[in-house]
Amino acid sequence: MPESPIRKLVPYAEKAKASGKVVYHLNIGQPDIETPEVALNAIRNMDRKVIEYSHSAGFESYRKKLAAYYKSIHIDVEAEDIIITTGGSEALTFGFLTTCNPDDEVIIPEPFYANYNGFAVAAGLNVVPVTANIEDGFALPPVEEFEKKITSKTKAIVICNPGNPTGYLYSKEELEKLRDIVKKHDLFLFADEVYREFCYDGAQPFSVMNLEGIDQNVILIDSVSKRYSMCGARIGCLISRNKEVMSSALKFGQARLSPPTVDQIAAEAALDTPASYFDDVVSEYVERRNIMVDGLNSIPGVFCPKPSGAFYCVAKFPVDNAERFCQWLLEDFEFEGATVMMAPANGFYSTKGLGEQEVRIAYVLNQDSLKKAVKCLEEALKVYPGRTVESSKVMSA
Amino acid sequence: MPESPIRKLVPYAEKAKASGKVVYHLNIGQPDIETPEVALNAIRNMDRKVIEYSHSAGFESYRKKLAAYYKSIHIDVEAEDIIITTGGSEALTFGFLTTCNPDDEVIIPEPFYANYNGFAVAAGLNVVPVTANIEDGFALPPVEEFEKKITSKTKAIVICNPGNPTGYLYSKEELEKLRDIVKKHDLFLFADEVYREFCYDGAQPFSVMNLEGIDQNVILIDSVSKRYSMCGARIGCLISRNKEVMSSALKFGQARLSPPTVDQIAAEAALDTPASYFDDVVSEYVERRNIMVDGLNSIPGVFCPKPSGAFYCVAKFPVDNAERFCQWLLEDFEFEGATVMMAPANGFYSTKGLGEQEVRIAYVLNQDSLKKAVKCLEEALKVYPGRTVESSKVMSA
Repeated sequence: MPESPIRKLVPYAEKAKASGKVVYHLNIGQPDIETPEVALNAIRNMDRKVIEYSHSAGFESYRKKLAAYYKSIHIDVEAEDIIITTGGSEALTFGFLTTCNPDDEVIIPEPFYANYNGFAVAAGLNVVPVTANIEDGFALPPVEEFEKKITSKTKAIVICNPGNPTGYLYSKEELEKLRDIVKKHDLFLFADEVYREFCYDGAQPFSVMNLEGIDQNVILIDSVSKRYSMCGARIGCLISRNKEVMSSALKFGQARLSPPTVDQIAAEAALDTPASYFDDVVSEYVERRNIMVDGLNSIPGVFCPKPSGAFYCVAKFPVDNAERFCQWLLEDFEFEGATVMMAPANGFYSTKGLGEQEVRIAYVLNQDSLKKAVKCLEEALKVYPGRTVESSKVMSA
Repeated sequence: MPESPIRKLVPYAEKAKASGKVVYHLNIGQPDIETPEVALNAIRNMDRKVIEYSHSAGFESYRKKLAAYYKSIHIDVEAEDIIITTGGSEALTFGFLTTCNPDDEVIIPEPFYANYNGFAVAAGLNVVPVTANIEDGFALPPVEEFEKKITSKTKAIVICNPGNPTGYLYSKEELEKLRDIVKKHDLFLFADEVYREFCYDGAQPFSVMNLEGIDQNVILIDSVSKRYSMCGARIGCLISRNKEVMSSALKFGQARLSPPTVDQIAAEAALDTPASYFDDVVSEYVERRNIMVDGLNSIPGVFCPKPSGAFYCVAKFPVDNAERFCQWLLEDFEFEGATVMMAPANGFYSTKGLGEQEVRIAYVLNQDSLKKAVKCLEEALKVYPGRTVESSKVMSA
């Protein structure tokens, strides 16, 4: 198992903090947004005497309420199309184990959420990347690039939409291109749509569940972690209209007995979160994104495409090596007593040598901290010894 | 994935209940014992505003408190020897993924907890059974039986002690025999000791962590599910003094981010459960075991070894086929408006054809229900069409 790119520099961050520096954590997607009151209250008011197993597919009441939530956002699924899992992580693992055999291949546009690698390794699969480019804002790579990678071992394509780490939101047209490939080669299409609620500037997410003609091929991965700022609940779900997939996935669900009970109660209650909560959260993230992305782009030599969703961006820095730069920020730099921790983006690429000048940034801190973090980066680039000539929109990696 | 033996008959049980029958559920190990108040109160009093990720190895405060618990029961481990997992299930999965490669073999004395199969399948492993016999009360099979099964692909031996489904408690001498095999062949020894607190008649459990000379080979699987009657919390742990194992297991832990936060808070608080709670629970289970096992043995033709631990027993019935008998009980039988659901034991054997006359019983109901269930079984055997000649202690399977 490769080390997670968001953790690689943790020892340096710890040393930096021990030395008295403030460290702005832009490396990890743990939002500071408060969990909705309805969810917290459900926990406080829990009146069970025994913390029993739930159904292996999750509480039926929760699955029914979830189906209603999906219907409300025009994703037409029933309770029986849903299996509650221990986080989106387990949903993807069950999906892989259900649809693939060891040594099979899954195609994933890179850069991608590094833990996909871990789930693939655990299921004995090989990840085959198709490279998206920062110059295009990480748009879907051309269909031909996918076609080139498809072999008799290819079982699935995996996407995250809106994307982690890029924040890119695939258009309906891009998804239809994927649909055509999936249909042509009879593959599964996994879509991790956990950032659905985080779309900006009026952009509307299009769910793979609404792609026509591949009903039996689509597997949706979801989670309450980001939506309700309850990452620690570890409650997600796997959704498919393919009965065979669901029945096989349920067997893996039965082997691990059930998803966590108390956290599931919180997740069920979270469905009653008022719409105003999301309005506030989205406005806040738009502000944060603007501070971060506009701030980065105003630094000479830095290029960061402006994402339409999620709360990440990938930025290219005018440095010899982003990992070295990130480590240097923690070890050797401070501005007004503070420094910044970012995740080097090479860990989000499966192809060796890519993303060497890129970092992933999670803009999950308050606006004031983000402003200070941007200022820190600006000052850092003035003195970083490995500073290179400008890396700009027109430069290639 | 094979279907779990405890669920196979669920549709028949549902029909039985729909027809108005009372069904005594002896098929599943969900205790009716109340979760300790300290654990429930910790949930009710949770004052977090954000349900955040914990450390991937679990909250440090919890691991420290757990280490103190283990020390109190003479298992000398430190917080860094512990990774908190999503149930014992995940602990075993991480252990398998860490120590074995696809196609490797793990030896497990059968009958064994059927889900071990699921975790092995998910990790791409092959389970090689060594058969224990009901006539010996499911004692450890002779060392030669293990030796016969060891190949170059064998990576580990897995035991559950006290055992599910048998309730058998391995003696120190039996465990030392296993230690010798493990040492000789440099295997890993996984021990699932989640029923440690449930030992009866003064029997003392001996932990594999205290076997001398195989410090680096032992992996302990634990869980709060049974100990504190909080199966739904899905909080377990993996323990080993082997630093390489722990560092590799942690990477799988990082890929799934963290164990559930709120349930972890409950599990941490549960460590303050007063000793009197366990005294009461153990007395209750001894009564229940006696009602069940003595009751079964008083039925002509039924044989059930008396277990010293856990809350299961495996009994042999004078029937043509235990699965057919269990299904018949649900479909075609009732006594005073009630019937019994049991798990056919063939699903706990890996060798086809074994356990055909055996059932696993979980004695997790109140004493009155257990008495009625025994009576039900007695009456059922008087009229079951597939009743055979006596199956007794001296008869072989």
